[in-house]
Amino acid sequence: MLIRRFVEADWHGVWPIVREVVQSEETFPYDPQMTARQAHDVWVESPPGLTVVAVDDDRVLGTAKMGPNRPGPGSHVCTASFMVAADARGRGVGTALCRFALDWAQRHGYAGMQFNAVVESNHSAVDLYKRHGFRVIGTVPGAFAHPTLGRVGLHVMYRAFCDNKSMPEHFHRP
Amino acid sequence: MLIRRFVEADWHGVWPIVREVVQSEETFPYDPQMTARQAHDVWVESPPGLTVVAVDDDRVLGTAKMGPNRPGPGSHVCTASFMVAADARGRGVGTALCRFALDWAQRHGYAGMQFNAVVESNHSAVDLYKRHGFRVIGTVPGAFAHPTLGRVGLHVMYRAFCDNKSMPEHFHRP
Repeated sequence: MLIRRFVEADWHGVWPIVREVVQSEETFPYDPQMTARQAHDVWVESPPGLTVVAVDDDRVLGTAKMGPNRPGPGSHVCTASFMVAADARGRGVGTALCRFALDWAQRHGYAGMQFNAVVESNHSAVDLYKRHGFRVIGTVPGAFAHPTLGRVGLHVMYRAFCDNKSMPEHFHRP
Repeated sequence: MLIRRFVEADWHGVWPIVREVVQSEETFPYDPQMTARQAHDVWVESPPGLTVVAVDDDRVLGTAKMGPNRPGPGSHVCTASFMVAADARGRGVGTALCRFALDWAQRHGYAGMQFNAVVESNHSAVDLYKRHGFRVIGTVPGAFAHPTLGRVGLHVMYRAFCDNKSMPEHFHRP
């Protein structure tokens, strides 16, 4: 399995993954009726952000996007999102994508990584992030309407990188 | 002072407020170099969201925007943002806008209101929200680069409305 930068030719492999994840309404607070065009706008990052794919031969197994969590005075904190094809789960694709994003963020000078809305019933994601040094900053009660579980909480999760007091490359104080 | 729906003719009074707030880099994680066009895109909400102005005679003293915090399975939680003209602070404009947004969100069936990034050094905002029933869900350490205080935390704040188990008008489960 190789993780590399997304190119437009990958979209035919990425869109079915995004569509399945979003339409399940179990793990992402995205519009389940989003079109391919809207999904592309949301998922394919422009610099300083990055979108990648995890591929095995030519098949896209998963995808991640990463970049500043907020503009301006919040842009030294990175965020990232991960999606894995339904039939490729449990094979370490999410772990590999998470490690890639953490490495990318540290190399680019971010101070830490924040996840804004981790569905608390998505145990595989929560456990993965905890294994990679994230902690739950807080949980907004009932903020996610799960199709079978009802309203569940959304975790804010954060991991600081080691005393990184510099600013990332894209951060310019006037 | 009157709070009413924003109309395009208000933008010449709203933009100087947004510009001053954003360029100060003290309270909003927005791009301080944002153009009027970008600010308009960010601040002027489309339905189901709403943007309002607080006016005294013809002068815009403050402005607020409100709407779903997240799409799809997160759209039953409202969010809102408030900005007050520098020379109109301390006169209750922010309080009036906050009360308007809370009333609007409850009337439209939201389950609660979430603020995603309240700068912890912005004591007037934090105290205002606490007085109106919000609590700090958690604080992302050092997530905001303040121009004089250095890196300060960003609070996630939340207030639930009374056992509102219905879905807002714009929320449609297929």
